[in-house]
Amino acid sequence: MSSVDAAVDPRISRTRNDVLAVALRLLIEEGSDAVTHAHVARTAGYAKATLYRHWPTRSELLQDALARVGEVQHHSPTGDLRTDLIEEVKVYRREMELNQLDRALVALVGLLPSTPALAGVRDTLVRDGERVLREMLAAHLSGPELDAAALMLVGGVLQSALMHGALPDDEVIAAAVDLVLTNFDLDTTQRSSR
Amino acid sequence: MSSVDAAVDPRISRTRNDVLAVALRLLIEEGSDAVTHAHVARTAGYAKATLYRHWPTRSELLQDALARVGEVQHHSPTGDLRTDLIEEVKVYRREMELNQLDRALVALVGLLPSTPALAGVRDTLVRDGERVLREMLAAHLSGPELDAAALMLVGGVLQSALMHGALPDDEVIAAAVDLVLTNFDLDTTQRSSR
Repeated sequence: MSSVDAAVDPRISRTRNDVLAVALRLLIEEGSDAVTHAHVARTAGYAKATLYRHWPTRSELLQDALARVGEVQHHSPTGDLRTDLIEEVKVYRREMELNQLDRALVALVGLLPSTPALAGVRDTLVRDGERVLREMLAAHLSGPELDAAALMLVGGVLQSALMHGALPDDEVIAAAVDLVLTNFDLDTTQRSSR
Repeated sequence: MSSVDAAVDPRISRTRNDVLAVALRLLIEEGSDAVTHAHVARTAGYAKATLYRHWPTRSELLQDALARVGEVQHHSPTGDLRTDLIEEVKVYRREMELNQLDRALVALVGLLPSTPALAGVRDTLVRDGERVLREMLAAHLSGPELDAAALMLVGGVLQSALMHGALPDDEVIAAAVDLVLTNFDLDTTQRSSR
C-alpha cells in the first residue's frame, strides 16, 4: 500500500523517509518510549495527523522504521574467499559503527514481547543480513556446520558490541574468518598462511 | 556494605534475595519501566520504605538485580576438550532456556544509555561468563585467535537466541565447537572424527 503511494508522489516518499529516519533515530537514542506519533511528528516537523495517515498504529510506525535497518550495502564478492568473508563480516561492524545497528537490534528485540508484529521485521532483517555470508559459506559447508559458521561469524561481532561494549578490531575479524576457513577444502593458494 | 548486612542477619539476606528475584523477573517480563521501587515492593510483598533502605536509587536496585544474572553454574572440565567446550557452550543455552538470560542481557544493554552504572555489571557478567570457556581455549589459542574463538562460541548462541528467536540445537553447538577445534594442535585421539 505505502509503496504504491510513494510511487505516485515523490513528496509522499520524502515525507515517509524523513519521518522513518527520525523515528529510528529516536528509538536508538531515546529508547522505544520516545517513538510516539506525537513525539516523532514534532521532532520531524510534520503534523501528527500526517503520521497517523501513513501509520495508523504505533506498531506500523515501528515496523517501517526498523525495516530501514536492513538497507545495508553488502560486500560484492571478489572471488578471493578469505577477503570476501572478512569484508562481509566488516559490513556488520561498519553498520554498528556508522548506523548503530547494535542499538537498533537491541531496541527491536526488547520491543518483541509488547509488539509481536516486529518478529516479521526481525526475520527479514536476519535473512537479508546473513544471506551474502551464507552464500559464501555454502560453497564449502552445509547443514549444522553452515549454520554454526554463519551464527558464529555474525554473533562474534554482536557479542563484542553488546557485551564487551567495543567492536572487534581487524585482527580479531581476520582470526575469526581464519578459524572457520581452516575447515574448508581449499587449494593452498586460497588458504591463509597461518 | 550489603553483604555485611546479609551476614549479620539472615532475614535481611532473605529480604534482599526475594526483592532482587522479583525485580529481575519484572525487568525480563515487563521491561525496564516496571522496575520502580513501588512496583517491585508491591509485587514482592515488602514495604516501599524497606526497598529504599536497601537500594536508595533505582540504579542500585537494577545493578543488584542484574548482577544475579551472573550466578551461573559453569561446566566442570572433565579433561575431554571437545566435550568440555560443548558442555560449556550449552551452559549459555541452558541459562537462556531456563532463566531467560538472553532477555536479561537485552534489558541490561538497553538500559546502559540511561543507567551508565550498569556498565560495571555488564563487564563483570562478561568476564565471569566467558572465563571458563577462555581458560579451555587458552591452552591452544592466544591473542586475536583466542578472542575470536571465545566471541564466536558465545556470540553464536546470542545471535541464534536474539536474531533467530530460537536456541541452537545440539548439532549446531557441536559443529561450532568442531569448527574451532580443527585449529588446535591436538593428538588425533582428542580430535573429533569429522
